[in-house]
Amino acid sequence: MLETFVQTERKGTGHAVLAAREALSRGYDDVLVLFGDTPLVQSDALLTAREKLASGATVVVMGFRTDKPAGYGRLIEDNGALIAIREDKDCSEAERAITFCNGGLMAIAGAHALALLDAIGNDNAKGEYYLTDIVAIARKQGLAVVAAEVDAQSVLGVNNRVELAEAESLWQVRRRHQAMLDGATLIAPETVFFSHDTVVGSDTVIEPNVFFGPGVTVDGGVTIHAFSHLEGTTIGTGAEIGPFARLRPGAELGEKSKVGNFCEVKKAKVGQGAKINHLTYIGDASIGAGSNIGAGTITCNYDSMNKFKTEIGSNAFIGSNSSLVAPVSIGDGAYVASGSVITQDVPGDALAFGRARQKTIEGRAEDLRARQRSIKEASSK
Amino acid sequence: MLETFVQTERKGTGHAVLAAREALSRGYDDVLVLFGDTPLVQSDALLTAREKLASGATVVVMGFRTDKPAGYGRLIEDNGALIAIREDKDCSEAERAITFCNGGLMAIAGAHALALLDAIGNDNAKGEYYLTDIVAIARKQGLAVVAAEVDAQSVLGVNNRVELAEAESLWQVRRRHQAMLDGATLIAPETVFFSHDTVVGSDTVIEPNVFFGPGVTVDGGVTIHAFSHLEGTTIGTGAEIGPFARLRPGAELGEKSKVGNFCEVKKAKVGQGAKINHLTYIGDASIGAGSNIGAGTITCNYDSMNKFKTEIGSNAFIGSNSSLVAPVSIGDGAYVASGSVITQDVPGDALAFGRARQKTIEGRAEDLRARQRSIKEASSK
Amino acid sequence: MLETFVQTERKGTGHAVLAAREALSRGYDDVLVLFGDTPLVQSDALLTAREKLASGATVVVMGFRTDKPAGYGRLIEDNGALIAIREDKDCSEAERAITFCNGGLMAIAGAHALALLDAIGNDNAKGEYYLTDIVAIARKQGLAVVAAEVDAQSVLGVNNRVELAEAESLWQVRRRHQAMLDGATLIAPETVFFSHDTVVGSDTVIEPNVFFGPGVTVDGGVTIHAFSHLEGTTIGTGAEIGPFARLRPGAELGEKSKVGNFCEVKKAKVGQGAKINHLTYIGDASIGAGSNIGAGTITCNYDSMNKFKTEIGSNAFIGSNSSLVAPVSIGDGAYVASGSVITQDVPGDALAFGRARQKTIEGRAEDLRARQRSIKEASSK
Repeated sequence: MLETFVQTERKGTGHAVLAAREALSRGYDDVLVLFGDTPLVQSDALLTAREKLASGATVVVMGFRTDKPAGYGRLIEDNGALIAIREDKDCSEAERAITFCNGGLMAIAGAHALALLDAIGNDNAKGEYYLTDIVAIARKQGLAVVAAEVDAQSVLGVNNRVELAEAESLWQVRRRHQAMLDGATLIAPETVFFSHDTVVGSDTVIEPNVFFGPGVTVDGGVTIHAFSHLEGTTIGTGAEIGPFARLRPGAELGEKSKVGNFCEVKKAKVGQGAKINHLTYIGDASIGAGSNIGAGTITCNYDSMNKFKTEIGSNAFIGSNSSLVAPVSIGDGAYVASGSVITQDVPGDALAFGRARQKTIEGRAEDLRARQRSIKEASSK
Repeated sequence: MLETFVQTERKGTGHAVLAAREALSRGYDDVLVLFGDTPLVQSDALLTAREKLASGATVVVMGFRTDKPAGYGRLIEDNGALIAIREDKDCSEAERAITFCNGGLMAIAGAHALALLDAIGNDNAKGEYYLTDIVAIARKQGLAVVAAEVDAQSVLGVNNRVELAEAESLWQVRRRHQAMLDGATLIAPETVFFSHDTVVGSDTVIEPNVFFGPGVTVDGGVTIHAFSHLEGTTIGTGAEIGPFARLRPGAELGEKSKVGNFCEVKKAKVGQGAKINHLTYIGDASIGAGSNIGAGTITCNYDSMNKFKTEIGSNAFIGSNSSLVAPVSIGDGAYVASGSVITQDVPGDALAFGRARQKTIEGRAEDLRARQRSIKEASSK
Repeated sequence: MLETFVQTERKGTGHAVLAAREALSRGYDDVLVLFGDTPLVQSDALLTAREKLASGATVVVMGFRTDKPAGYGRLIEDNGALIAIREDKDCSEAERAITFCNGGLMAIAGAHALALLDAIGNDNAKGEYYLTDIVAIARKQGLAVVAAEVDAQSVLGVNNRVELAEAESLWQVRRRHQAMLDGATLIAPETVFFSHDTVVGSDTVIEPNVFFGPGVTVDGGVTIHAFSHLEGTTIGTGAEIGPFARLRPGAELGEKSKVGNFCEVKKAKVGQGAKINHLTYIGDASIGAGSNIGAGTITCNYDSMNKFKTEIGSNAFIGSNSSLVAPVSIGDGAYVASGSVITQDVPGDALAFGRARQKTIEGRAEDLRARQRSIKEASSK
């Protein structure tokens, strides 16, 4: 169960934790204090801290090691106990050499948490309630306070957009690594961007420069070519995507289907083995198994106010550069001639065309060029 | 005021500076000698050197610190004075350990510059006039010669395409960093390429893989999705671009307008809130506020010799897969049916269509397939 | 001559080499043992090893230096001889400090190779035949065994997809470096992906994010803009490609031709100076010199079973949004009007059109909107 408590006034970190007074007062075993700006915290770090609680500590401060401790608060330990968090500017020469630094995150024994937090005062320059004060408070009460070493990423704070990008980058590195260990082949992992919920099946190959927005699930044996952009999409086994494919929310691609270059698919079911290979927009549509959608096909799904559906059966053939004006349905095995504008339903196995007859006027191109030339000359005067 | 003087013969760096004899003889206070192949010089470096001039130095040589000095000329100092620039091969053991190296760039007191430069001789193996000789010349005349330490990037020379790419990369890192501090969110900064003059407003979000050519100004609150390519373009507040958008010189996008996937916009004004969402080419055109351009629309702006304009009013609706044959104008609130070829002006609030009626022949698809099958069989024989 | 011998049972590395018994028994001078999972081996490494054979060694083990030898077998040398390959777990304290590690690759004097390999036994835990055993075997026979230091990349093994991506990345770094030294300008080399056989001419400029699949040859003076994807393609001098171009196998682009954004070219010859600038699919086609293919043109090359050719002469003009229904030919200097569906051959210098006349109904857009509005209201109830 997740509950949210909001600190409505900015009165320091100790005050922030007390916004959850109601939950704290329920008497949970362990209280973990995490920060909204340390997005890379790993479960390992929390387990390490909780083990310290289980071994008898009342307050656990999570710290990290760094070669460059300047600027960080140092964790001053004595005989296994954490005796103080010393701000950089207050450090003695010897303390300044300490490389174990305060990561901010804490674990507190639930039985003591509320009392310790309530004991925090605001008698300081800013008049704020500092969470770190509970180290001294707990020690004064003879309670065990210890530091737990966790990995630096787990306590990495984000203070501006540069650090946000760095945190994102670290997360992507982790995620790509895991995707490869899970069986996906990434030709150039550093160019593939995952979302928190991306699922990629085994033996799927991802070429360079693929962007996964939220909500994408890819089965195994899929190939995603370079320069593809996917969101809210499911892709069946053995499908082939891109290069230059845009899959938008609601795209559901069947097994062995293909979506090729400069194609956009939105809110559309694409049947097994169906092909949408070139320069096509499929929106608000369903396409049956084995159908072939020609290059340049557009589902005209919007009339300026409403969206309508296009339904294409199985094994249908939509000729290139056709416009399918929704709402419209094309039956199984139907054939639409290239360059047609289709405004009425086409029954199964019917042939439909909606295009003008060609007229050819011999020798006329030269007349045309003469006229164009005179326009050009006139305009350049 | 910028003036250019060209060295027409290759007679060394000292000779090159003297190509600007006319400017030097005007008696400027400070003369700064920069190189065309050190593109990353920062103003800080020049200010540091000029301060040395202001403090009494006549010649200032800019140097940099490096852990790997091998190959560079070392700056030999004594008591604050620069006594020599020693080539790597001429260094004593002790001098070889010096990590302060010659960056090449110089500042010279204007009152002495011309005389010092004229004193450079060419009595050396290559018969060239070396700018570095003025160190010895100035010292012989009892003038103060000092070194100024500047950052290594400021004096980074480019000798081949590999180093050019490295310099470009360093510059991009700087530029991305600044863009983020200035308030743009870059999801993956290492994949965004800026030009020297790119302007990006605050709270603009840039997804991975965006390329800014010269002349792009983006207002605040804009979203630029992945795989977008922009040059010579202005983008109004709150607009949404891409993914897969190509904005070419002369594109002026209004507030909250949208240019979506596989769309190209060139020399075109796009009004507030207008939408060009899919697979469209808009060239030499203006589009009024609130108009919607359907998927696959093409402005046919070129007749093989001349370019013509397409003018679309506000709140117009251009149906998908339409061809607008310029010169042509579409009035406010006009409606063009999907799949139309429009060759004549459409008045405001008119409905225009230019497409053939659909014909549907039941059962005929099977005949067609039989014919195709026989072609296939014939060709495989 | 390349011959392949396959080890059909997994009985260890020594057994694997003996799968080539037939070749080994022919008495070649030098036998080099390389591994399928060390793809970055360089010829330098092999030459170094062969020189050792030429100087009298019978067995040469290739090793590499590393700061982090933990986990690797150490090469134990004495007086220039390799006396043992010691597994990490079997190392003494002193041996553990050795940074010269076994790279696995070997060179064996051909005259001794078969006898040494046949002497390998399988009296070990796994019952396998280990190639490394020949070190001890050769030494026992009084033959010279030495180590040869090679670069770490040459012996870099790939055990999973993460390491495969790392190897690919190292190879790409090498390849990009070489391409730049060979005269290509790469704006952002880390975003350009080459294949093993990519050829790029001098003074060709490659923007960020270009992907070369196999079989691409690019002449000099070409510009390849960002976001382009090329396979099986040849590109003539001075051509301009992309951004957002997809060149598929069989594309042959002539000198100074252009293929622009959102264009796909497959199995097609494009003549000198011909232009395919926007949103076009050209497949199974030939285009003569100087022809201009309008935006949105589609060659309709597929009838659901067969592929047909489109032949376009020189200096032809294909109006935008046209559909060319193959098989079809367009003569030299012919002119196809925008938005046409062309199903019959067009003679040279003829004008062809295949599109409906425009009809415009004044004031009708408002009626249409009223109807759309009522649909919207009905559907929202």
